Amino acid sequence: MQIENPYLLFLGDARDQLAAKTAAGIVDWRPGWCLGQLRLPGCGADLGIDDMTVAEAKAAGVRTMVIGVVNPGGTLPDHWVDVIVQALAAGLDVASGLHTRLAEFDRVREAAHAHQRQLFDVRHSDETFRVGNGVKRAGKRLLTVGTDCSVGKKYTALAIERDMRGRGFNAEFRATGQTGVLISGRGVAIDAVIADFIAGAAEWISPDNTHGHWDIVEGQGSLFHPSFAGVTLGLLHGSQPDAFVVCHEPTRQTMRNVMNPIPSIESVINATVELGRLTNPNIRCAGISVNTAALDEREARQDIERTAERLGLPACDPYRFDADPIIDEIERVFGRS
Amino acid sequence: MQIENPYLLFLGDARDQLAAKTAAGIVDWRPGWCLGQLRLPGCGADLGIDDMTVAEAKAAGVRTMVIGVVNPGGTLPDHWVDVIVQALAAGLDVASGLHTRLAEFDRVREAAHAHQRQLFDVRHSDETFRVGNGVKRAGKRLLTVGTDCSVGKKYTALAIERDMRGRGFNAEFRATGQTGVLISGRGVAIDAVIADFIAGAAEWISPDNTHGHWDIVEGQGSLFHPSFAGVTLGLLHGSQPDAFVVCHEPTRQTMRNVMNPIPSIESVINATVELGRLTNPNIRCAGISVNTAALDEREARQDIERTAERLGLPACDPYRFDADPIIDEIERVFGRS
Repeated sequence: MQIENPYLLFLGDARDQLAAKTAAGIVDWRPGWCLGQLRLPGCGADLGIDDMTVAEAKAAGVRTMVIGVVNPGGTLPDHWVDVIVQALAAGLDVASGLHTRLAEFDRVREAAHAHQRQLFDVRHSDETFRVGNGVKRAGKRLLTVGTDCSVGKKYTALAIERDMRGRGFNAEFRATGQTGVLISGRGVAIDAVIADFIAGAAEWISPDNTHGHWDIVEGQGSLFHPSFAGVTLGLLHGSQPDAFVVCHEPTRQTMRNVMNPIPSIESVINATVELGRLTNPNIRCAGISVNTAALDEREARQDIERTAERLGLPACDPYRFDADPIIDEIERVFGRS
Repeated sequence: MQIENPYLLFLGDARDQLAAKTAAGIVDWRPGWCLGQLRLPGCGADLGIDDMTVAEAKAAGVRTMVIGVVNPGGTLPDHWVDVIVQALAAGLDVASGLHTRLAEFDRVREAAHAHQRQLFDVRHSDETFRVGNGVKRAGKRLLTVGTDCSVGKKYTALAIERDMRGRGFNAEFRATGQTGVLISGRGVAIDAVIADFIAGAAEWISPDNTHGHWDIVEGQGSLFHPSFAGVTLGLLHGSQPDAFVVCHEPTRQTMRNVMNPIPSIESVINATVELGRLTNPNIRCAGISVNTAALDEREARQDIERTAERLGLPACDPYRFDADPIIDEIERVFGRS
């Protein structure tokens, strides 16, 4: 599966900026792929890029219209279907991060068939995976893990990819969630895979590669989250990371959507090493990514410094500042290639 | 979902006894539910129960025909479809442990619809689960875990249910695999659930219950199996067991279908306690189930004794002998009700 870029980002009548979070993530990390946005009357979101019709997008070279928005009712309204059918008729593929599959709508399915266009439902996986086998693959892998869900594992992986490339590493982001798939044009939403194939899907996401190549794998969930730890462990085993980075949000008190307290960074490091050893005996922590969004700059720098000192590991906020301390550590331990 | 019994066990033209392993498991554990077997010409399996036609089964009071057999080609042959349609027309439901869904066959789907009968595909789950929440539920739970896949977790759970009931406990087997679902008439094949919902499905399998009630939950995989550990962990978190029993096959050298060595019983106990604490801080090991099938009786008793001494925990082979040492421990720690 490969979603072709450049993209037209469809925002529909998104209520506000938050409803267009997926699209905003694509603009953040792949601005060059995002030629325009398509907004309907009443849209409360703005990505700060050119407004375009489907025809204008086609003329500008767009290959795929991406529905990167949460719709108010939870279903796909008729006036969205009209635009999707227009896009298919104009020769664009359509990719969607909605729960509902595009092909469930007869007009969409028929238009895709008639115009020989592809529909991508990135929350679902139509790929057939094999069961994981735990066999060591060539090339290097870094996985982002977390003290909780939604602490910045995707943004950390993307920042590490960007900064490693900036320093001459052969590094590649590997998406395991729907927004990540739209940002990189491929990958799989691993929480949508049948449970038997979690590790197998993770092995598929970061296949055998050349010596010196780094896959930077987007983590999911947390080993300490009672809803999702199974996904996290299957992803850890299948990714067989050489290095991992722990993502942490220092102001959060309880884990997302549950009552459990946030585990310590230390216990996440220990559990990840203990369990990760099964498929990579040399697994090691390469640093801490502190999500300092809730802190002012002075507090942020203080928290990062204290974390690094306490753990004796590099720490940084790779999105707000840069990922250099972590990449220094990777270079120190693994060398440049 | 509730598969109604009694059953007619359909064996088709199963090559040999091994191909009818699922049906044999049902006869082993629910002999009273199994009124007859239906064998086609060339069938090499025999469950040792009465041969019956569909009409005879209906007259005897059978409610469901169970396809408890692996078919040679991997697909459902036409002459099986004929019998399935006959069963539906006679007013039986049909339950299947095959990979292919029954409803994929037009004649089967149409017959089920025409005769208002239910089709159960126990390898698939049509239930909608919610995401797990980790909240403690009332009642007690025991989970069987293993040093590997296929070491006797289902049979251990069933033997513990049987022997606890024999001693007056209010105990109930909870199925998490296809054969277990056919043996108990309900449950879910947890490895067939979407990854996001593993823990939620496990919570659904052993819901809130009365004080003193024990759910005996069938375990899956192993925390040390690189293919399936994610499923195992989600099941552990969702089951929130008060007690667990480690199942072990002492002659096995490497884990099933992979090259990894079998972990020690000690490391399985430690990992299960460490990780299980997240949803039940009082989790404890209630004993070891040694699968002695490959040993003669003297070796079997010696191995069990050595295991119990080494670990300071009750050990037994609950299928070959009985589960008493484990139930004594449960009674000692948790009392009778």
